Amino acid sequence: MQITVLAGLNSKFGELWDISPRDLVKEVFHGTLKNSNMNKNDIDVVFVGNMLAGTLGGQNHLGAFFAEELGLERPAIRVEGACCSGGLAVHSAVLGISSGIYQTALVIGVEKMTDHKPEKVAEALMGAGSDLERDAGASFPALYALIARAHMEKYGTSEEEMAAVAVKNHYHASLNSHAQFRNPISIEKVLKSPMIASPLKLLDCSPISDGASALILSSKSKALSLKKDDPGVNIVSSVVATDTLGLSERKDLTTLNAVVTASCKAYKMANIDPGDIDVAEVHDCFTIAEIIAMEDLGFFPRGQAGKAILEGKTRLGGRPVVNTSGGLKAAGHPVGATGVKQIVEIYQQLMGVSGKKQVKNAKIGLTHNVGGSGATAVIHILKRG
Amino acid sequence: MQITVLAGLNSKFGELWDISPRDLVKEVFHGTLKNSNMNKNDIDVVFVGNMLAGTLGGQNHLGAFFAEELGLERPAIRVEGACCSGGLAVHSAVLGISSGIYQTALVIGVEKMTDHKPEKVAEALMGAGSDLERDAGASFPALYALIARAHMEKYGTSEEEMAAVAVKNHYHASLNSHAQFRNPISIEKVLKSPMIASPLKLLDCSPISDGASALILSSKSKALSLKKDDPGVNIVSSVVATDTLGLSERKDLTTLNAVVTASCKAYKMANIDPGDIDVAEVHDCFTIAEIIAMEDLGFFPRGQAGKAILEGKTRLGGRPVVNTSGGLKAAGHPVGATGVKQIVEIYQQLMGVSGKKQVKNAKIGLTHNVGGSGATAVIHILKRG
Repeated sequence: MQITVLAGLNSKFGELWDISPRDLVKEVFHGTLKNSNMNKNDIDVVFVGNMLAGTLGGQNHLGAFFAEELGLERPAIRVEGACCSGGLAVHSAVLGISSGIYQTALVIGVEKMTDHKPEKVAEALMGAGSDLERDAGASFPALYALIARAHMEKYGTSEEEMAAVAVKNHYHASLNSHAQFRNPISIEKVLKSPMIASPLKLLDCSPISDGASALILSSKSKALSLKKDDPGVNIVSSVVATDTLGLSERKDLTTLNAVVTASCKAYKMANIDPGDIDVAEVHDCFTIAEIIAMEDLGFFPRGQAGKAILEGKTRLGGRPVVNTSGGLKAAGHPVGATGVKQIVEIYQQLMGVSGKKQVKNAKIGLTHNVGGSGATAVIHILKRG
Repeated sequence: MQITVLAGLNSKFGELWDISPRDLVKEVFHGTLKNSNMNKNDIDVVFVGNMLAGTLGGQNHLGAFFAEELGLERPAIRVEGACCSGGLAVHSAVLGISSGIYQTALVIGVEKMTDHKPEKVAEALMGAGSDLERDAGASFPALYALIARAHMEKYGTSEEEMAAVAVKNHYHASLNSHAQFRNPISIEKVLKSPMIASPLKLLDCSPISDGASALILSSKSKALSLKKDDPGVNIVSSVVATDTLGLSERKDLTTLNAVVTASCKAYKMANIDPGDIDVAEVHDCFTIAEIIAMEDLGFFPRGQAGKAILEGKTRLGGRPVVNTSGGLKAAGHPVGATGVKQIVEIYQQLMGVSGKKQVKNAKIGLTHNVGGSGATAVIHILKRG
């Protein structure tokens, strides 16, 4: 079954205090629908990726909520898996279309976080972690700091190498009009930013963000909007894997098992190697997460990703180019939207419509969306043609 | 694609203060796995139906949470749609298996509600309603009271007829060792119970409950646990539909559009008529809901279901027999579990293992799971053989 991306759109990410979740979603839906050249009635089903609307907003029926808001009287399902809720919503749409039960799916990812006090949001986000970690008062920066320390100890990864992730992603974000932070930064600036959880400093951390993303996926027979000779962009792999919620149950903190498992399957399914990936959006919730992603995804040997990033190998002009959107770090991280946004970014890259941040001749792209500190991983591979 | 139910189990429903959600889920999982004669490794994917773990418990990564707890390193996805989260989890499993991507799915439905103050739970449940209704201070009993008043006005439905739903369901529950309320009641007792939201009295309302349910579904080629000549029980229809969240946007309060839409499609898909249903589990969150369900599902003409129920036509011995479990009213309504529990009940009925509450020669069964006041409806049809 071929799953074609017909259209995709991200809202601006950031502190969007003047727009409600429903208006954010309307904006990306109508934009996406217009780009797809499809009629609203062609949509068979709606999947909504969201983490915190229940915890922070008391709203627990988001499928029907947005279906009504968008005037779509269709089956509508909310899908949740912490910070990879968006990726799981895309995966669910792939299941729905592959089943033959639905032909065309709308996927929405949305999160509105900045309306709430940061302490409240940080507490709510710990809903993605283990009981033990929550009871111990751990926050996600603290958990990723443990991961960073383990990686530094085992491989000699340096704080400069981590900082280089943030510098690259801010540079990419400076080319992305929808990014939350468009200011270029230097390694020195990252190193001098306030300490959050040693060795992670403020500029090693992704922000709290608002934002929404929409995608329309379809089986080929229904891909009405593609021009006759346009092969389009297809999702060729969609794989989910899980690991323990908490770090204390893992043998090795320098790798995320779920990512290794899911990406190996995804490469096999697409019949490609990591070296075939031209462009990737990865889950850089903290800079160390991008370094580990590079190694878990097989882009660089263990212990060598930090150096490669510092040398600019994953920056525009290098290969694979990673996080052209600016990643979670600089484009922003509205958690339920992130996994959908990643697919939108790769779709635009493969369609060659990414403007200043376009990767030349990008044919194959990958997305890497992680829930919690690696308890769930969702990998998608997209191909032009 | 044939989807076979390999096994299913419900925990006891009720105020289960001495058991945690994780132990509840372990209990139903291990029991189900044992009944299925399958190995844990045969399970490819886990779907978890739950509404309130985020809002009430601060836990927002339930897929990975239970995958870890059960020792299943598998893709795991939480599915949410208010009170039909369980039904949507079953639907998602049907999509997953039909896609060919997964062959055998574990579906878990779980909710732990009685650990929290009832006011807190009532507030959290309003997360299933519209903003307007929440802002107006409406509760679900109030919304269903409006529905009841409309039905009474249009069709002359009486409070006795509504009470007869509760009486029947308490009678059925008296035969179900896992039900929350096993005490038989009389129409007089219902009518004399305290008024909650006129005309709905305490005994017209389903309770706040704890409970968990588990199901193992598989494509036929993988149905290892069935004896050679056993045709098993198959899910032949799985349909979702949505409507407006709030009542104020609906033309008619005496019917749930989403149920009519979904059940029509489900009958067509199964190539049967309403008259072919031997046994049904329906979403009687309030007694009026069961009356309307009988009409929306085509079991009785509009305005005649109340009388039919009062005459015992849907009681054991009648046809179709409705809510042999005791329904939400008497078996209990742990919201995320309910939609899964319904499938378990029908599966057991069609396998002929329902003991005292067995419907004789039951061959075809239906489940009707509703989110909010009808914004989402999930209909499944199951067939023996």
